[in-house]
Amino acid sequence: MTQNALGKTSVTLLGLGAMGTALARTWLAAGHPVTVWNRTPARAAALAAEGARVADGAAAAVAANTLVVVCLLDDTSVDEVLAGTDLAGKDLVNLTTSTPAQARGRARWARERGARYLDGGIMAVPPMIGVPEAGGYVFYSGSRELFERHRETLGAPVGTTYVGEDAGFAALYDVALLSAMYGMFAGAAHAFALIRKEDIDPAALAPLLADWLVAMAPAVHRTAGQLRSGDYTEGVGSTLAMQVAGTPTFLSTAEQQGVSPELLSPYFALMRHRLSEGSGEEDLTGVIDLLVRRPGT
Amino acid sequence: MTQNALGKTSVTLLGLGAMGTALARTWLAAGHPVTVWNRTPARAAALAAEGARVADGAAAAVAANTLVVVCLLDDTSVDEVLAGTDLAGKDLVNLTTSTPAQARGRARWARERGARYLDGGIMAVPPMIGVPEAGGYVFYSGSRELFERHRETLGAPVGTTYVGEDAGFAALYDVALLSAMYGMFAGAAHAFALIRKEDIDPAALAPLLADWLVAMAPAVHRTAGQLRSGDYTEGVGSTLAMQVAGTPTFLSTAEQQGVSPELLSPYFALMRHRLSEGSGEEDLTGVIDLLVRRPGT
Ligand SMILES: NC(=O)c1ccc[n+]([C@@H]2O[C@H](COP(=O)([O-])OP(=O)(O)OC[C@H]3O[C@@H](n4cnc5c(N)ncnc54)[C@H](OP(=O)(O)O)[C@@H]3O)[C@@H](O)[C@H]2O)c1
Ligand SMILES: NC(=O)c1ccc[n+]([C@@H]2O[C@H](COP(=O)([O-])OP(=O)(O)OC[C@H]3O[C@@H](n4cnc5c(N)ncnc54)[C@H](OP(=O)(O)O)[C@@H]3O)[C@@H](O)[C@H]2O)c1
Repeated sequence: MTQNALGKTSVTLLGLGAMGTALARTWLAAGHPVTVWNRTPARAAALAAEGARVADGAAAAVAANTLVVVCLLDDTSVDEVLAGTDLAGKDLVNLTTSTPAQARGRARWARERGARYLDGGIMAVPPMIGVPEAGGYVFYSGSRELFERHRETLGAPVGTTYVGEDAGFAALYDVALLSAMYGMFAGAAHAFALIRKEDIDPAALAPLLADWLVAMAPAVHRTAGQLRSGDYTEGVGSTLAMQVAGTPTFLSTAEQQGVSPELLSPYFALMRHRLSEGSGEEDLTGVIDLLVRRPGT
Repeated sequence: MTQNALGKTSVTLLGLGAMGTALARTWLAAGHPVTVWNRTPARAAALAAEGARVADGAAAAVAANTLVVVCLLDDTSVDEVLAGTDLAGKDLVNLTTSTPAQARGRARWARERGARYLDGGIMAVPPMIGVPEAGGYVFYSGSRELFERHRETLGAPVGTTYVGEDAGFAALYDVALLSAMYGMFAGAAHAFALIRKEDIDPAALAPLLADWLVAMAPAVHRTAGQLRSGDYTEGVGSTLAMQVAGTPTFLSTAEQQGVSPELLSPYFALMRHRLSEGSGEEDLTGVIDLLVRRPGT
């Protein structure tokens, strides 16, 4: 791979949306030679002024360097942009959000074209790029060799977490964490809705809510232990039976406050379903079994 | 109120379930004279050995001290237990889980009987009682005077957070925080379900999940600010339009992994609904408006 006099790897970056632009900017600031291309050329102008070379086509951009990073809208746009390029011998790193199946398909597709492949799932928003203390990072999976070779370069704009040879794993971890976050946001939305009709400042609730969620988040470690052992009663504090007994209070409170229970009731329904299977002494972990489609259903 | 030679307030405690027993034990350990009563007398035996006085009826227990703490199953059991007692001049503290409406009703009921009233919502499980570093606490609301008078005694077994004169507020804050927690648990359940069919150790996902949820929990501060100002675009990072555009990836991934989307889709549906109202440049805060029943609907 090409490096400059300072030993900084040259990077080709395709896609200068909000995320691609932030990445290009931090690589340039860190002294990496950067070649960029974007469908709408105007978006490359500011980066050119910061030292980026602007290629006049995707094929020329890919030809310029061994390390080729793609950060486009979606898997379809990756297809369109890479269609006319020669990927033989390239180290292709795809930071475009995709499903695990798309990432696996793209990995096969890249191998067929003679490229090594690494898939990335970005756990950050553009303002966190180049700001290590913001704590953002990218999940990587696929070729471990490629990850190790470019670890330093990939780590310049934002942290890196390698999660396995299966190219689909980065996308899977990415989606898993974001899905959990939406669950938390849904719960917080319900909480804020509950106080809407009262003389309570949302800013008085917020710190209590944030602290409580932070205190309860580590419960996922107990869940993981129970999933591993298969014993869902392991270390249980409040049993499923106790918790199901408590749900009418939550639903009545929502009713009293004029709040729709639609964000809570599906989880409560699964808790009741699991309890009806005779799992009253367990933790809440059995709900996970109910979510996974059984073979033949 | 009665105090012993060490200036420790005497406490009457009705209800020796898991929670009441833990409370009695820490008050005894802190040197408070404690009078207890429980419907099933056997549960008082161990506490008697630790120094508790055991009353032979609820009425006698209430008569023994000014400060009367109740920790029973539910509001109905409070009704039954206090029915034949004389509450005139008492400082009644009710730690029984209830809805805001039940707490407000109980406050009126207590005032009619000549008692001051404080309602509590316990944000802890029994093993956290008497363990300050566990971070548990009780929300209190109702008589501020009563809270101030007994602050030290109430704070001996577990932290205290006073949230207002409205007796229903402790229950409301309690339910709000626990509701949000169930949302987070639902999201985490979905995340663990997603990796079920893969060769991924749940214990590898757990720390990443916990850290991510901890990092995202402070987003509720931004939500509170937006609710106060009424401007849901304030400080927005990823707009509602961007986030709705991302939801197909979450749903396809669930489909690919054989996971039911039932815990996520209600939130996504509200996001889409809000977007259809022309709120694409907003944050996710508008979902809260959709949860609150409008007058006349
Ligand atoms: N922004 C975030 O907060 C964030 C966070 C995590 C992950 N991501 C992921 O990062 C990737 C890029 O996000 P972004 O925020 O940079 O998106 P964006 O600002 O919408 O930019 C999209 C980029 O894709 C290009 N593009 C779209 N369709 C194309 C096509 N058919 N052919 C060629 N180029 C095409 C656009 O080119 P034009 O300029 O010509 O339109 C632009 O460069 C996405 O997969 C996103 O999910 C973003
Ligand atoms: N445990 C927790 O993790 C936790 C956490 C937060 C809040 N809380 C709240 O704390 C309160 C007590 O919880 P707990 O865990 O101690 O419950 P528990 O172990 O089930 O004990 C229930 C208590 O209520 C008594 N009781 C029930 N019905 C009665 C009736 N009709 N007449 C007289 N006494 C009656 C029981 O007496 P007997 O012994 O005679 O059955 C027992 O003392 C509940 O409101 C609960 O929601 C508990």
